[in-house]
Amino acid sequence: MRTIGLKEIEDIALGASLLGAGGGGDPYIGKLMAMGAIKEFGPVTLLDPEEIPDDALIVPMAMMGAPTVLAEKAANGREAKALYDLVSKYFGKEVYAFMPMEAGGFNSMFPIVCAASLGLPLVDVDGMGRAFPELQMVTFTIGGVSASPMALTDEKGNAVIFETVSNKWTEELARSVTMSCGGSVAVALYPMDGKTVKAYGVKNIVSRSETLGKAIRNVKESGDKTPEQSFLEFTGGYRLFKGKISDVLRETRGAFNFGTVVLDGIADCKGKQAKVEFQNENLTCTVENTIVATVPDLICLVDTETFLPVTTDALKYGKRVLVVGLPCFEMWRSEKGLELVGPRYFGCDTDYIPLEERCQEVK
Amino acid sequence: MRTIGLKEIEDIALGASLLGAGGGGDPYIGKLMAMGAIKEFGPVTLLDPEEIPDDALIVPMAMMGAPTVLAEKAANGREAKALYDLVSKYFGKEVYAFMPMEAGGFNSMFPIVCAASLGLPLVDVDGMGRAFPELQMVTFTIGGVSASPMALTDEKGNAVIFETVSNKWTEELARSVTMSCGGSVAVALYPMDGKTVKAYGVKNIVSRSETLGKAIRNVKESGDKTPEQSFLEFTGGYRLFKGKISDVLRETRGAFNFGTVVLDGIADCKGKQAKVEFQNENLTCTVENTIVATVPDLICLVDTETFLPVTTDALKYGKRVLVVGLPCFEMWRSEKGLELVGPRYFGCDTDYIPLEERCQEVK
Repeated sequence: MRTIGLKEIEDIALGASLLGAGGGGDPYIGKLMAMGAIKEFGPVTLLDPEEIPDDALIVPMAMMGAPTVLAEKAANGREAKALYDLVSKYFGKEVYAFMPMEAGGFNSMFPIVCAASLGLPLVDVDGMGRAFPELQMVTFTIGGVSASPMALTDEKGNAVIFETVSNKWTEELARSVTMSCGGSVAVALYPMDGKTVKAYGVKNIVSRSETLGKAIRNVKESGDKTPEQSFLEFTGGYRLFKGKISDVLRETRGAFNFGTVVLDGIADCKGKQAKVEFQNENLTCTVENTIVATVPDLICLVDTETFLPVTTDALKYGKRVLVVGLPCFEMWRSEKGLELVGPRYFGCDTDYIPLEERCQEVK
Repeated sequence: MRTIGLKEIEDIALGASLLGAGGGGDPYIGKLMAMGAIKEFGPVTLLDPEEIPDDALIVPMAMMGAPTVLAEKAANGREAKALYDLVSKYFGKEVYAFMPMEAGGFNSMFPIVCAASLGLPLVDVDGMGRAFPELQMVTFTIGGVSASPMALTDEKGNAVIFETVSNKWTEELARSVTMSCGGSVAVALYPMDGKTVKAYGVKNIVSRSETLGKAIRNVKESGDKTPEQSFLEFTGGYRLFKGKISDVLRETRGAFNFGTVVLDGIADCKGKQAKVEFQNENLTCTVENTIVATVPDLICLVDTETFLPVTTDALKYGKRVLVVGLPCFEMWRSEKGLELVGPRYFGCDTDYIPLEERCQEVK
């Protein structure tokens, strides 16, 4: 158990934004909201998963929708309270603590806003260890946990409760409502007990985000290694490509951001051109027609100078980025995991080959 | 107080189908479901609105979606129980009775199914006195009653509760979910107390449907008048046109059936051609470029021989129909009523002129 105050926020947002693999929303807006909540209500207690009782009700909180929309259609600040009221009224048990559902610039911060403003603790765990675009894509689905009852609220004050026959149906119905509400909403879903959180959650993700964030901020100061080498070392990342963005094809469809970013190689790159496909999050990285990484492994774009993550909603022509691959949480590499989030689910015609092997092949 | 048994069902379904003004769903399917429920659970008690206590919770029940879809994607028979369970769990008070929300072939029958299978009475009242395509289009909206909390369930077992900031938002969000569920769902909405039902409801609509249905079945037997004259007499209807369907333009969009039916005049018709526009229900009737009737007045198509109503999902080439106009419930002719269901709401560029005046003009 420890507390999260203003100084931790900056690092958590930055590190989670890297783990967001291009998605998870704008870290700037999330950070401002979390800082505002902590200034108003005081710091948040962060619990280690092992500290929560087996029968405690833990509720993940997140924003759902297209990150580009979220940046312009901001939250109204009352979402946390509105969701808490819905959860208290409909889920039939007192909430013990909140938790994040995914790592990402915004979705690492929103649960902190909820925890601060409701005076509840936050658990150091999530259901992805990264960000994914659809709500059934969590380790808890592998564990047979139901996404519903799920509560949803928008900035106008509309509220919806879902009880569905499968997590894919929760995604389907909640996505429709998200679109009708203008493309982004706040949600509370996968209410579960402490035992389940411990069995299937990605543990210590908040702390990992914080460590990564701190390291990114200090990356330039690292002794004899180049900043890039030291960045790759502390992230455990694979260098996939380095290039200048020469084109961004983008479409907002079904409350998702779909698109492709094209990169022209710079510096000591193996190929001349690369492209990264995305659906909110980066899905595949292809260098000179060879796939070098796919979901569920993390494909992260960072600024070549500052190493700050570049999310899919911030991609623009001329930006120079390093494309880094990070191995995903091991549960995603199981058969059930790949059914949920493997490349074929996203319409990419390739089997999943772990990042480590793909990079071996390329070398 | 009286009971509705098998012999009443046939007449109610037939009469309500006429009042559906082209919409309200297929009377055949509704009738079969209601008969099945009455055979299994016994007859239903029909209460006069004046018989219900002021503080009793009354819940309208209906199917929502496109009538063409409803005819093919049937209900699973467990909707009534599923809705009742949702209402009991979430609305926080015991249900005293059900009521229909609109007159129509299917939506006059579904509340009977609910009442029979749950052993609750039905109130002889509805919120339209006809059928309308969108859920905020009820007299209760004029009375400031909220459509939410609203419960929705589909034949797969998905369930959703809405609490919205306005009835237009209930329509918006519930319509999205209806589309995602395949185009038709069962709903419980506008939960209200007995006092409100008495203040804003269209009273004795079930009994009126039954009387109309019985008269339609016996229309041929009427002494010295032609069957058509006697049909017009007992319905209080205006003869707008008589023709053969020469074209049906139809589109299912947003879980609605939109379209136009074109008629070539037969017999002693004033014009050569007429067209009727519809959105689930018939919206306008135009004879030789002159509008002769618009919403909220009822525009009903009936078979020229049997006088059986022809709903918009059953329109087809070659059918001979009589187009009849019936004056709507008086509350729809108020300013607030016309804001909700006047011709301009449906994109028809004309002021509302009561049917009686329009028909005077034409003569």
